[in-house]
Amino acid sequence: MAPFITKFEPYEPEEYVVCEKSGTKSPARLEKVAIVGSGSWGTALARVAATNTAEQEGFDPEVRMWVREQEIHNGKRLIDIINEGSHQNEKYLPDVDLPENLIAVPSLVETVRNASLILFVVPHQFLPAALKELKASGVVNPKARAISAIKGVDVVIEKDAAGKTTQADIYTFPSVIEKELGIPCTALGGANIALDVGRGEFCETTIGVPSAKDAALWHAVFDGPKFRVHPIEDVAGVSLSGALKNIVALAAGFVDGMGLGGNTKAAILRVGLLEMAMFTQDFFPGSSSFTFSHHSAGMADLITTSFGGRNRKCAEAFIKSKPEYAPAGTVTNGKGKTFLELEEELLNGQKLQGTLTAQEVFDFLEARGRLEAYPLFEKVYRISFEGMDPKRLFEDL
Amino acid sequence: MAPFITKFEPYEPEEYVVCEKSGTKSPARLEKVAIVGSGSWGTALARVAATNTAEQEGFDPEVRMWVREQEIHNGKRLIDIINEGSHQNEKYLPDVDLPENLIAVPSLVETVRNASLILFVVPHQFLPAALKELKASGVVNPKARAISAIKGVDVVIEKDAAGKTTQADIYTFPSVIEKELGIPCTALGGANIALDVGRGEFCETTIGVPSAKDAALWHAVFDGPKFRVHPIEDVAGVSLSGALKNIVALAAGFVDGMGLGGNTKAAILRVGLLEMAMFTQDFFPGSSSFTFSHHSAGMADLITTSFGGRNRKCAEAFIKSKPEYAPAGTVTNGKGKTFLELEEELLNGQKLQGTLTAQEVFDFLEARGRLEAYPLFEKVYRISFEGMDPKRLFEDL
Repeated sequence: MAPFITKFEPYEPEEYVVCEKSGTKSPARLEKVAIVGSGSWGTALARVAATNTAEQEGFDPEVRMWVREQEIHNGKRLIDIINEGSHQNEKYLPDVDLPENLIAVPSLVETVRNASLILFVVPHQFLPAALKELKASGVVNPKARAISAIKGVDVVIEKDAAGKTTQADIYTFPSVIEKELGIPCTALGGANIALDVGRGEFCETTIGVPSAKDAALWHAVFDGPKFRVHPIEDVAGVSLSGALKNIVALAAGFVDGMGLGGNTKAAILRVGLLEMAMFTQDFFPGSSSFTFSHHSAGMADLITTSFGGRNRKCAEAFIKSKPEYAPAGTVTNGKGKTFLELEEELLNGQKLQGTLTAQEVFDFLEARGRLEAYPLFEKVYRISFEGMDPKRLFEDL
Repeated sequence: MAPFITKFEPYEPEEYVVCEKSGTKSPARLEKVAIVGSGSWGTALARVAATNTAEQEGFDPEVRMWVREQEIHNGKRLIDIINEGSHQNEKYLPDVDLPENLIAVPSLVETVRNASLILFVVPHQFLPAALKELKASGVVNPKARAISAIKGVDVVIEKDAAGKTTQADIYTFPSVIEKELGIPCTALGGANIALDVGRGEFCETTIGVPSAKDAALWHAVFDGPKFRVHPIEDVAGVSLSGALKNIVALAAGFVDGMGLGGNTKAAILRVGLLEMAMFTQDFFPGSSSFTFSHHSAGMADLITTSFGGRNRKCAEAFIKSKPEYAPAGTVTNGKGKTFLELEEELLNGQKLQGTLTAQEVFDFLEARGRLEAYPLFEKVYRISFEGMDPKRLFEDL
């Protein structure tokens, strides 16, 4: 039905060794999974992966997850809580039991050592430092494969001495990871609120992976009866959708903050999805509009994020913090709060991706002289950072 | 960007007459709008149309709306309340002021007499009788045009004496109206919860109308700054989407009733939208999948209905009425309620469209031997009417 689906055969180890004495056949080597990141989404994916590797032939059951030494929860090290305490990530994914073969490791380098399959799932502001450390350490197996569940884009704008833009480029994180580490990187994204995935509720996700062999591998790592993985060819589309949807989710939060209803929100989502698809096809011509219209990484993810995600939540609070939109009886500071203040207040240490992406995409489109083709993206930026009246969201759509 | 958009020039009266004395130019004849139906959605659309006809050259400002004599609210005739009382449809669209040029008329025939533009917006169970009465009266102007905002399909199954199906056909309501009345009929649908439209919140709608001239007319009747109308060529797609989305909305309500989260709902919506598009293209080959993926009548309407509509609401109540899913502390009747009981209890006289459509579509697919291609549609029917465990919704999707 939906084009660009990657065809693959179920995963099987490539080579086996046979024990001369007993005749037992076993895989010649084991795939080993590492998780770079331990926020709510990283932990939820780590749980899925560790559950699968414990049960499948060809995988080392131990999955390592990078948890910073200094992550503290209720006075204890998060690493100790995960490895020796409740076996939960009490800070970012509370009340979800993690399998014992998922090991929290304080060192990034030790997390990745010997891994053949590396998931990157850090907030996008933290990726450059992580890649630099990994590259310098020489620990990354040149035959390893990476997958990115990072929500964001890498925008590079060069200016001359007079401040005039000389070049503006945009990269997906899979391409950044490929370039820095010299290993192939695919993308994962879908309608996945971390806590619901952690609780084992039914959902779908999309992996952008053109190689049939790699599709089989990543499918084996993540697919299960309650977490259905669909591989498609479009790496850029999956990665960009995960980034751009957060801009639209901010618009959805503005709608909620203004107290408008489901019709308005659905209209914003429809226009937003079209801008997401158009942006991706404009700047990544090999990508497919089907990724947005047909797959979990597209419309389904946008729906979930725009009704339940943290960008929506902070954007609603942003509008309601303004004196003219504050609910009756609430006291405001007289001018509204900034997104930085709201992130601090509402997110318990998690980072907001949408505002950063809105700014980067705005800067990129402005530098390329293409803002007028993306009125929703432009307005989300101006409402977020330039004090534009949120009512103007609906003009020229 | 989105294909199959109908290109049209803004509406202008075709002919003018010029007063010999004063030289004043005025349209040779006026378009006159009639609304067949006065439920919440009919009243909301009537309000939009009457607001526009009052302000535009070429239209008779008076818009007639059919309200049955026996519609009573708080002991008063609804007709009197609308025409002489609060000027609100207090029963079906409370707290929304209706323009004084919108006149409630108890006779269907008098509503339609002299009309050149007729909107049909009755529950689909009531359409055959209305068409029969109109046809018998001879009141329909043969040059009139119709538009259908009815949510449903017309399924005709013929069986032989032994009860074996000999023929199974499906028709859209625009085609039924065209056939019965001998006038062209287009379709209207979109992300439109009646009360939000009534309140004047921003939203979009789609009109399926291949003729540029008719597109201009219907656009003039309905479009406004807060109700944006986009004409596309695909009549069948717009009409079918409005019917089939209600089946998916029932599934969304089941998800809510089971207490599952946004990921699960988004997955159901994604699969549901694919089944909607596939069904339409299977049985109406001239239709376009873009109607579903790109337009308000497709994905946006599905989102709105699946989060806010009455089908979702009753489906959630249906699950929660079952002893095994009842929230802690509530008393059930020990076996759950039927949809008929819930319609009675929750809808204040409005009709539920989704369960009827689910049944008709199931009967049609079964008669055609095509059920296995539509697992979600099939399961919604079986959960609704055959006691299937709602947890099985996620199997084979």
